[in-house]
Order: sequence, then structure tokens, then C-alpha cells
Amino acid sequence: MRPRLEDLPIRDDLRGMTPYGAPQAPLPVALNVNENTHPVPKDVADDILDAVAIALRDVNRYPDREFTLLREGFADYLGHGLSADQIWAGNGSNEVLQHLLQAFAGPGRTVFGFAPTYSMYPLLTRSTGGTWVAGERGVDFTLTAESAAAQVAAARPDVVMLCAPNNPTGTPLPIDVIEAVYAASEGIVIVDEAYFEFAPAGERSALTLLPGRERMVVSRTMSKAFAFAGARVGYLAADPALIDALRLVRLPYHLSALTQAAASAALRHAPTMLAAVADIVGQRDRISATLAALGYRPYESWSNFVLFSGVEDPAATWQALYERGVLIRDIGLPRSLRVTAGTEEETSAFLDALASLDSAS
Amino acid sequence: MRPRLEDLPIRDDLRGMTPYGAPQAPLPVALNVNENTHPVPKDVADDILDAVAIALRDVNRYPDREFTLLREGFADYLGHGLSADQIWAGNGSNEVLQHLLQAFAGPGRTVFGFAPTYSMYPLLTRSTGGTWVAGERGVDFTLTAESAAAQVAAARPDVVMLCAPNNPTGTPLPIDVIEAVYAASEGIVIVDEAYFEFAPAGERSALTLLPGRERMVVSRTMSKAFAFAGARVGYLAADPALIDALRLVRLPYHLSALTQAAASAALRHAPTMLAAVADIVGQRDRISATLAALGYRPYESWSNFVLFSGVEDPAATWQALYERGVLIRDIGLPRSLRVTAGTEEETSAFLDALASLDSAS
Repeated sequence: MRPRLEDLPIRDDLRGMTPYGAPQAPLPVALNVNENTHPVPKDVADDILDAVAIALRDVNRYPDREFTLLREGFADYLGHGLSADQIWAGNGSNEVLQHLLQAFAGPGRTVFGFAPTYSMYPLLTRSTGGTWVAGERGVDFTLTAESAAAQVAAARPDVVMLCAPNNPTGTPLPIDVIEAVYAASEGIVIVDEAYFEFAPAGERSALTLLPGRERMVVSRTMSKAFAFAGARVGYLAADPALIDALRLVRLPYHLSALTQAAASAALRHAPTMLAAVADIVGQRDRISATLAALGYRPYESWSNFVLFSGVEDPAATWQALYERGVLIRDIGLPRSLRVTAGTEEETSAFLDALASLDSAS
Repeated sequence: MRPRLEDLPIRDDLRGMTPYGAPQAPLPVALNVNENTHPVPKDVADDILDAVAIALRDVNRYPDREFTLLREGFADYLGHGLSADQIWAGNGSNEVLQHLLQAFAGPGRTVFGFAPTYSMYPLLTRSTGGTWVAGERGVDFTLTAESAAAQVAAARPDVVMLCAPNNPTGTPLPIDVIEAVYAASEGIVIVDEAYFEFAPAGERSALTLLPGRERMVVSRTMSKAFAFAGARVGYLAADPALIDALRLVRLPYHLSALTQAAASAALRHAPTMLAAVADIVGQRDRISATLAALGYRPYESWSNFVLFSGVEDPAATWQALYERGVLIRDIGLPRSLRVTAGTEEETSAFLDALASLDSAS
């Protein structure tokens, strides 16, 4: 008889769990995991390939454990007077967040976030041994400085996760809320700006709050606006002392020489890599307007996706779209679905398919 | 005043720690971290680059979370009738081991190994919340089936780490010891064969023990014989049920599309990639013979490095070699140093520099 998972001496807290995972279905229109659906431009890909070719010359050697060139690239890209010693990176922002929780959360400690928020926060909290504490949002998933600060002051968490703008709702997080939460907290405050590049031009990043706030971290990713999800590169900015803490918990040589080379090369082409952002924002706003016209209720979004409610039967609508070749995401919120803003064609395919269903309620 | 690490709310168990790290010194002869010092052949690098070019075409999308093609490649490479559902991989074998410990060790559980052994085992055990328990070795770091099984039976660990051959000593681990430890244990038994390709031809891998032993894991790496340390690819073979457990703890999309493409391409050239192994083994044996002639005491090694004792002042000898442009490793064992077998030229540089010191005792 074949052994089963439950026959193995797996940890009790993992028994009965199922792995994280959006369905990986090869549909023509995939708008389910908030990717940038615009491929990397050819000239950028060529330059990345040249960088990888150089890295392959000594791929028999371990990579630079300090990924110095890449940290300099991120510091330059982010601006705000940041220097390389304030930068950290990992294989996706999930790994960067994992490093933060390994250093500052874990057994006996609590991690706090305002639900609903990025589903990996509670998973990462538990996988690093800590306890997840969920706070509440107001009308349409918004947060005020007063409410957020009061909840954090009451919960006294070791780490606060602020997703700005918030996934899966798209909700903007005003900078005064971040300031108030930091002032109300004695722990680490992580501002996850994975989708920040899609916010209205001129909006302040939490990066502007870093000076004088040594417990604050601003994390970013190359997976969204940067169209680099396949390369798995997340990063963050914080005080150099906080970066030192992450060196204690990362695996040695965690970033491959190929990843370092590819990401550094892509960063040198940041304006080209980000050229699709305005298009995507345009499609996002088109989605919101069309959904409203169809009788659905889209939530305000500063990201590259739109959460909408007013869906009578989300599972049925998801399935009907799936059968029409359009993959979106049922993130488990009542009467709601989430869709990524794709290219104009992909977005049209989604909107046309949805319109043909006539299932707004 | 600049904030210091100790001013931050870091976990108590991390206070006062310093990061893992072999010195990263740009010396002409680097024989300190057991790399394969032979670069990847040009035609293999070209093929890897072609594979990366294809992967870059949709690097804006998340990678295959199941790295199906790569798992098939490892199953083919390992042979022994293994199939892709028995394979797992990560960013270096450290990440693969971390996944195992997250699933089967962690808070309230113990991980057992025979000291001295790979220094990352206790670090990974602690970083995942578990307790490290060190067993003992016999004369010249060897282990007998009787002693090993008795120690494991007495300790009743949740996970046993067997490094075969052992790092940092190079000591072979007879297959009957592995069988006896498995029989004496009720937990997961991990056989780390990072250096197995350097063992004498015809020696049995622990892979031959897998059928019927669903608690056994055999881990490997592309960092050593495969000359792929910079690409960060470790992997393992085990029962499909055990692989399912690792899906519960890995970060989603932990292996980048570039890593998957590069590793799959390299695997297609396995015979070429491994062509340097015989050279390296020859240099290893030359090191051992020369060290003995110089009055040092080399330990038997089935790996690509040699541990030798009889060094009066290891720190002084390490420094003297460093000043002569040769980087080896002081791994903290009394009167001992460890050196990687390099190319013929690198090996000569080490042996000549050491001979010039005349410091065997």
C-alpha cells in the first residue's frame, strides 16, 4: 500500500492542511494572480541575457552573498536618498517577509494586519511559528488613522503588516494612517508596497517616512509593475541596523548569481520595464467603470487589479468565465471576485465574457 | 545617533549572534567553500543561455510552481527507477533542508546529527525553532552501525541528519550505518549526499535504500560536482507522500523560471558537467598524499576536499596561506584545516605554499 502523508511524522500543526495555490490553468486569458501581462521588451531581454551570460562564466562559484551590485541598483531605483546598506532582497517578496518574521516574530510573538489582506501574511506568520492577529477595516475596506492606531495600540503586536495599497481589495492606505500606526506601535511596522507603482502619480511612498523610524520597513517587488514575476525578486528598504538582523536569518547565498545578474540588468532599464504601468492603470479604471455599468460594485483600487462585489454566486461566475477561457480569482470574500487588469485585449475578453453572463445582482 | 541592531525588537534568541559566513576574499586561489573550481564548459553555457532566453519570454508571469520539467530532469539524472513525484528542489540544498525541518522538526522537536558535521544543520534546526542534538563519532570521525543506531535509539530524534560523505571531515558513511540508523529511528532520516559524486565509482547511494522506507530522504546539490553553486539548486528524492508535506511549507513559486530553465538545461549535459569529477578526485588524492609526506595527517575523504590535522596553529597557517594568495578554511576543529581540491594548478599553488611554511607538527 502506498504511504500517505498522514502516515508520516509531520508536525501536528500541518496535519490536514492543503498547500497554497491559485489554480495553474493554461487559459488564454489569465487575470488571476495580478501579474503584469505585458512581456519584457525585447531589447531589455537581450541585455538581461548578456548579464546572465557573464554570470554563467563563474556559476561554478558561490554567488556574492551580499548581492552588492543588486542592492546598489535598488537604492538607485528607489531614490529618496537611500543607500545600498538600507536595502535587502530575496527570492520574491514572500522570502523577504519571511526573513523579517524570522528575525522579529516567531514563537511567542504576534503579527497584526487589517483583514482582509494578503493571504500570505497569516501563512508566513504561522510557518515561522508566530501568531496572527487580525484587525478590522471600515466601510469599503478603508482605514482611518484613529481606528488603525487604536487597534494597534490595543493589540501591542510585535510586527504590523500594512499592505499599501491593499491586496486583495486594492484599497489605498493614506500616509497618515501609516504614521499613526507607527506612532502607536513599539514593534516592527512593515509597509508592503508591492503594488505602489500603480498608485496615482505624485502619491507619497512610505519610503518618505523611513528617516528617523528605525522600526519601519518598506517592501517592494519586481513581480508586479516590473513584469518580472518569473524571476522571483522582492526587496525592501529599512535602517541599516534592521538589515543586519536579516543577515542572521537568511540562508547563506540565498540569491543566485543568475537572479542577481538578471535583476540588476532589468533595473538598469527601469523606465522601459515600467512603461506599461500607465496602460495597466488605464485598463484598471476601464474595468471599474464597465463593472459599475454592468451593475457590479467595484472597490476603489490603486493597484493593478479590481475587487468587485455584487456577484450573486462567485463560484458560478468564476466557473462560467473559466469556460470562456478567462481565469480570474475567487478570493473567498462574500459575493465578490478579483480580476487583474491585463492588456487592452485581455481586459476586453474579460469584460465581454462577464457581460455575456448577465449575473450581476 | 545611528540605531544599533540591539536597539531593535529582534528575537531574544538572535541577540548577540553573528551571520554565517566563510570570508568572501577575492584571492587568486580560493579553495575554502568546496566549490568545483572548473568553470561550466562553453557549449553547456550556451545551451543554458538559450534556455534562459526562452524563459525570459514570459518572465512577466509567475513560474511553474511545481517545476515539473526540472523534477523530471532530476528523476532521469538520479535513475534508480525514480519518478518526478519523488523529487523536490529548492534554492540550494539549504532551502531543501529548511523545507524538511519546517515540515518535520520545529518547536518541540529534535534534530540529531553526528558531530562534527555540516555547520548549517544546527543553524537550520534553530532557525526553524527546533533543538539540535549532537551525537558522537569514533576514531577518525568514523561511525559504526552499532554505535550510530544505539545513539539514535537513545536520543529518539524527530529528524536524523546523516552527511554521506561527511562535511567537514570527508568521512565515508557505509550504507549499513544508514540502514541501521533508519531501523533504529521512528523519525525522518535525511541522508545528505551533497558530495556523493566524489565517492569511489560503484559505491552504493542511499537512493538504493528508498523503496519501502517512506521516512527516508536523500538530498543532493548541483553546487559541488555539478559546478553550479552560483545557480543555487539543491534537490532531494523521497516517497511522494513526503514530497506532499514539503508543498505545505515552501513559499509559493520558490524556484524562479530562470533557475528552472538553467538547471534543466545543465542536467541535459550531465556527463559534460561531471567530466571534471575524476580530475578533482585525482587532485584530492594528491593533496592527501602530499600532506602526509609533509608530516600532516589527512583524514580519509570521499568528497572534493581534505581535512587534515597536525597543524600546530591553524589560525597562523590559514593567515600565512592567505598572504600567499591561497584561501582555505579554518572550520574550528583543533589543530586542523580544510582545503578544497581545485584544478591541478590551484592544488599545486596550495601545496607549494603550504610546503614553504614548514609548520607541520
